[in-house]
Amino acid sequence: MQLAERMAHRAIGSTFPNPPVGAIIVKDKTIIARGWTQRNGSPHAEVHAINQVRNKKQLEGASIYTTLEPCYHVGRNPPCVDKIIKYKFSKVFISEIDKNALVKGKSIKKLRKRKIKVIVKNFGNQTRHINKVFFKSLNNNLPYITLKIASTADGKIATKSKKSKWITNAVSRQHGHMLRAQNDCMLVGKGTIIEDNPSLDCRLSGLESLSPDLFILDSSLNIPSNYKIYTKHSRNVFVFYSDGKKLSKLNNKNIKHIKVSKKGSELSLKDILNKITNLGYMRILVEGGSHLSGSLIKNNYVDEIQWFRASKIIGKDGMDAVSDIGVSNMESTKNYVLLESKNYGNDILTIYRKG
Amino acid sequence: MQLAERMAHRAIGSTFPNPPVGAIIVKDKTIIARGWTQRNGSPHAEVHAINQVRNKKQLEGASIYTTLEPCYHVGRNPPCVDKIIKYKFSKVFISEIDKNALVKGKSIKKLRKRKIKVIVKNFGNQTRHINKVFFKSLNNNLPYITLKIASTADGKIATKSKKSKWITNAVSRQHGHMLRAQNDCMLVGKGTIIEDNPSLDCRLSGLESLSPDLFILDSSLNIPSNYKIYTKHSRNVFVFYSDGKKLSKLNNKNIKHIKVSKKGSELSLKDILNKITNLGYMRILVEGGSHLSGSLIKNNYVDEIQWFRASKIIGKDGMDAVSDIGVSNMESTKNYVLLESKNYGNDILTIYRKG
Repeated sequence: MQLAERMAHRAIGSTFPNPPVGAIIVKDKTIIARGWTQRNGSPHAEVHAINQVRNKKQLEGASIYTTLEPCYHVGRNPPCVDKIIKYKFSKVFISEIDKNALVKGKSIKKLRKRKIKVIVKNFGNQTRHINKVFFKSLNNNLPYITLKIASTADGKIATKSKKSKWITNAVSRQHGHMLRAQNDCMLVGKGTIIEDNPSLDCRLSGLESLSPDLFILDSSLNIPSNYKIYTKHSRNVFVFYSDGKKLSKLNNKNIKHIKVSKKGSELSLKDILNKITNLGYMRILVEGGSHLSGSLIKNNYVDEIQWFRASKIIGKDGMDAVSDIGVSNMESTKNYVLLESKNYGNDILTIYRKG
Repeated sequence: MQLAERMAHRAIGSTFPNPPVGAIIVKDKTIIARGWTQRNGSPHAEVHAINQVRNKKQLEGASIYTTLEPCYHVGRNPPCVDKIIKYKFSKVFISEIDKNALVKGKSIKKLRKRKIKVIVKNFGNQTRHINKVFFKSLNNNLPYITLKIASTADGKIATKSKKSKWITNAVSRQHGHMLRAQNDCMLVGKGTIIEDNPSLDCRLSGLESLSPDLFILDSSLNIPSNYKIYTKHSRNVFVFYSDGKKLSKLNNKNIKHIKVSKKGSELSLKDILNKITNLGYMRILVEGGSHLSGSLIKNNYVDEIQWFRASKIIGKDGMDAVSDIGVSNMESTKNYVLLESKNYGNDILTIYRKG
């Protein structure tokens, strides 16, 4: 099952709108196939594993390990549960029951009816975490939000004159691109884009096609149409706005404008996150700026922080990583759990999770 | 020699005004004694090791390993080099030649004249670092400055209403007390004292007597005489000031006032650090506030930063760990070398050194 979990890991960030799942097929104590959810969810992990086995007769009496209950329903793929029955597997090990109402134990029931032995056991925290992201989007209509911060040792993301190239080193920045590949989409504030005119894609060699779709907050539609985010045609760009004139010059069918309500003077974050989830996105990477980071932290939307810290100091007048979130006493600080930290040369990456 | 180095480590923070040194005596491939510089420098490491050997005849033909050239001069202790000659050691291994003009190779010459074999070899970076601290105070008239910072993940040391109890957890705070024991003295700004009325001593069980002497910056002598730092009588407290009336009510002979010149509107840091060094202190721990930390960083006086970070966020309006140091572009950031980082429960300690 640990191996199945690793297979699931391979799939993270590329399976949207499906959850990343891993599967392993074992026959006579030998692993005969490994599978993981393929690009954009087709085929599913179980079928991907089954497809690796040329002689389908081998599958008779085999066991399959999967990190999530096999699907029961017809979506864009036929139900995995039927394939398992068809090829006469004898045992199915499942790490977690799918909380999706369309499945939720139905597959297990069906398999048992056909005298296939089903063992449900939560084998690892890591798998639980992977599935939690999926369940969160199902139950709360919210994506799993990872906030990426690249700051100095004293928590500044730019000098007072907004200079930030480069605070962190090349290794940290490469890892930052990996984070982009591992998420379904990205969300950034207007300020970051207007300031730097970034491409916000994944530029790791071989992973360029995993550049996540892009969500932008631009309430009055101020970002010029010749900016890089509008001129790359290979992915979807969604612009959240509340007023302002849509850019007429945009000659790109992948760009969509989504009108959202306001909460006070700002776009409603809840509305935005619900809309993103409804579009099927589960994992969202937020790359600032400091105001967006602050709003998400303040409203407890942040599930994970990947904080890259250079061994440099800018001092008080630099730009803060997190804007004012109204904390006046030690009881109201926003608290996270320290998951791990890694040294990248002279930088250090610390990963925090919601408690 | 590694063992001698470890002995030297034991002595750090308690040998003032002498440097911490370690020594090992070996006879017939067996370690027969270990020594390290004792409290306030007496006896020296070599003599401390020699004293462990009851039957002094054993020392004939033995080897001694020491992390610093044995002393040649008469200070508060008789010269170690003469003891080595007296007991007829046959070999002396030395990690580094003493840069103190009173020694500087003289002991080595004297030993060699008496046909004692002397091997000088720098065995470890750690020893070099311990001696560097001592040499720095000799050559530059500056102490080795360790800055301790306890902040949130976003680099804040208090909320806007100056609340800071407690940002870091009990383990971090204990380690903070260990830092106090490992330094000869502490330096703090007036603000920290007026705000919190702290004792600034070492409260680790068994190490209370290693509470470092205290230096305070109080340019106009505003700290009231009933504050804790003035009512503990067991250690020296030095108050740097430029004007203002000395507190007449202080009934404590351990408190001394030192007048220093001003540089602009502030006390001259250079003057202060020179004066501290001239008093014999080599290792100084700075515990803020943010203004003092900023001034020291800005003027490149900080040799080491011990940065404790809790997994909490306060946001922009909290108090910064480091005040404005006039950095406006990425070329002028103050850069350090990441030495190591350790997890203390949900806190993380990162140690930076001057490059």
